[in-house]
Amino acid sequence: MTARSLLYAQSGGVTAVINATAAGVISAARDHSSAVGRVLAARHGILGVFEEALFDCSALDDTQLDALRRVPGGAFGSCRFDLDPPQDNPAQYDRLIAVLAAHDVGYFLYNGGNGSMDTVIKLSQAARARGYPLTCVGVPKTVDNDLLGTDTSPGFGSAAKYLATSMREAGLDLRAMSSRRGRIFVMEVMGRNCGWLAGATALARREDGEPPHVILFPEMPFDQAAFLARVEQVVQRLGYCAITVSEGIRQADGALLVEQYEDVKGYVQLGGIGQWLARLLHDRFGYKHHWTVPDYLQRAAGHLVSLTDRQQADAVGRAAVDYAVSRKDCVMPAIVRLADDPYQWSVAPVDLAPISNLERRVPREFISDDGFDLSAAGSRWLRPLIAGEAPPIFVDGLPDYRAPLCPMVSPRLAGFTP
Amino acid sequence: MTARSLLYAQSGGVTAVINATAAGVISAARDHSSAVGRVLAARHGILGVFEEALFDCSALDDTQLDALRRVPGGAFGSCRFDLDPPQDNPAQYDRLIAVLAAHDVGYFLYNGGNGSMDTVIKLSQAARARGYPLTCVGVPKTVDNDLLGTDTSPGFGSAAKYLATSMREAGLDLRAMSSRRGRIFVMEVMGRNCGWLAGATALARREDGEPPHVILFPEMPFDQAAFLARVEQVVQRLGYCAITVSEGIRQADGALLVEQYEDVKGYVQLGGIGQWLARLLHDRFGYKHHWTVPDYLQRAAGHLVSLTDRQQADAVGRAAVDYAVSRKDCVMPAIVRLADDPYQWSVAPVDLAPISNLERRVPREFISDDGFDLSAAGSRWLRPLIAGEAPPIFVDGLPDYRAPLCPMVSPRLAGFTP
Repeated sequence: MTARSLLYAQSGGVTAVINATAAGVISAARDHSSAVGRVLAARHGILGVFEEALFDCSALDDTQLDALRRVPGGAFGSCRFDLDPPQDNPAQYDRLIAVLAAHDVGYFLYNGGNGSMDTVIKLSQAARARGYPLTCVGVPKTVDNDLLGTDTSPGFGSAAKYLATSMREAGLDLRAMSSRRGRIFVMEVMGRNCGWLAGATALARREDGEPPHVILFPEMPFDQAAFLARVEQVVQRLGYCAITVSEGIRQADGALLVEQYEDVKGYVQLGGIGQWLARLLHDRFGYKHHWTVPDYLQRAAGHLVSLTDRQQADAVGRAAVDYAVSRKDCVMPAIVRLADDPYQWSVAPVDLAPISNLERRVPREFISDDGFDLSAAGSRWLRPLIAGEAPPIFVDGLPDYRAPLCPMVSPRLAGFTP
Repeated sequence: MTARSLLYAQSGGVTAVINATAAGVISAARDHSSAVGRVLAARHGILGVFEEALFDCSALDDTQLDALRRVPGGAFGSCRFDLDPPQDNPAQYDRLIAVLAAHDVGYFLYNGGNGSMDTVIKLSQAARARGYPLTCVGVPKTVDNDLLGTDTSPGFGSAAKYLATSMREAGLDLRAMSSRRGRIFVMEVMGRNCGWLAGATALARREDGEPPHVILFPEMPFDQAAFLARVEQVVQRLGYCAITVSEGIRQADGALLVEQYEDVKGYVQLGGIGQWLARLLHDRFGYKHHWTVPDYLQRAAGHLVSLTDRQQADAVGRAAVDYAVSRKDCVMPAIVRLADDPYQWSVAPVDLAPISNLERRVPREFISDDGFDLSAAGSRWLRPLIAGEAPPIFVDGLPDYRAPLCPMVSPRLAGFTP
């Protein structure tokens, strides 16, 4: 068996633990030295393959891999880029295969979400059509937790831990302030179509009456009258109300709320839904209002990662290399839940074809009957994913993130623009 | 010397370390048992004095005080309430003194910002005018760092550490993503008139070219043309640009930017300045844009407090009790900087009269010549304030904040509404 190069790349929105997956890949590749020669990483995902912009990670030692594991964001760069349908643009695939061949890449690992899994399948098919020997493996990653086929996706647990912590802390602030006219706080979290992150903020609550008091899931059509009544009821009881909203909540007809607002007022609504809801409640009830949009902060918080999440990120990277060298093509290492409490999990391969480009939404039984909260079943399912801490090293008061530098491989082909 | 009660209260926006000050007060009061009898805390600041809503904290033990020290937010509740001028509303002051007398309060400690210091002075004058023996001490607290007379204000260092960490982390995310049309990220931070928190995000940068690339201070009039040119220049060099903006930046004529936007467009601008700037840059240059508004998260992040800040919060609480029992009226314990590097500080009393209701803005020499960055002098001044960590205890993946419960004192007077 001749050792061939392994190429790893990061795709889509990055997370606080995607580099732990990269470290797992690089570490495992070294354990398979008879099958894997050089370990390469493309710069900015599949774009780096087109551009032949490849880092050589073969020389990273354990200390450097440990540093890499702790850095949030995508150390090699990421992209949002969908391949054209093969029949529409065969030149695109010719180029990809040419670059892989130029560097004797026998294994391609793509670390991303459901769209990235489609890229894995297309590239595998292109290689086969051209007689190029290549094993393609998808590696799961997304803060949205919307990948099918796996219990959870690395990146989600850390974002969930960050948001639940933030809700607990902001809730203490909200509770401290006095106001006779009531106070509301709205936290807008990521999740265009899936309310996993919104639901996770319910983990902040230990006792009835603690924040968050209302959660708006994109899975539940927004009922404005019921929402207003619910918030008013909470404010009458407590004097304040904390609300979590997924950025993508919709009305019963499927229209995004912010779009509806544009139509009604006749001008472009600049804000997110959190601000819109805060304003709505202020206008209706006169409540004092605050709102937060954590945005990148929720997916980049390396200072507050879930140890469970980071361990899973590392494990899927290692497993992906195992699958690649054993020629399991078009599979993804999935987290398999063995038990809830205490949480036990393992990693197993799943076929990509049935799961790529699909979304896993929060099931109805994980949402409370009234639609405004996580259910007990949802809480039981989510809680283990945020368990454990893996704090960074601090220097001068700040996390000391230092991604190791890898040399670029000399290009062997002429330039190309996809 | 007869022991008299000490009354402590929290005022204004709360912080991640204000309860460390409360713990310092309660702990020090027990060390002065010959002078201090019961230790009371008003619920929701001065409002709790009007309402005779007083907690008895005398029985808290060291374990409970340590738990209190770790909880963000105001454990006893806070308020934003300014006393009327004494001549306009003497009944207000009669009531306050009556409540203090009913519980034999000989020491009043008010933990807040510059407005709260005015309350301290007014209450002291009212007591003296009525022949009631009372020593009033202000205790500094504000995330805005705008209190005069003290090197820094407890609460600021932790918020600064949170924001600098967040900028470093979000910057890694921003850098990872690829985009041919440029990307910008805007972080809107607290600071209506003072850019201390905005400036602190510069601490995230270790090397030239790292985020943040542009900082907008409320101390510097906003020059839109210069701002756009600066951002464009950064994006041309790096492909992206991270911007920190104080919520209260203004134009040269003193008008808030969001107000100006309202006038120009003729409708109410709902958003904050961060979103407005992101949109401006998108409209002008076509950049992809993200923006964050941490809001409460920046002042409530108990999971990321500065140890230096918490030690100072504790120290000013202890010193305030010392001053109270030695009859230093209308003073505030101030942090005195003895050295920058290594940072050395002590606590000393300052008179409140010359500093109440004033604001300390960022001095020009702490801002770079071009107005868009912290200067080296500013960085040197700010850096020690975020040093050191004091992580919370985590249970089930989340910080285990548990403020100890204190019994309420039985009211002795009839009700009153201020």
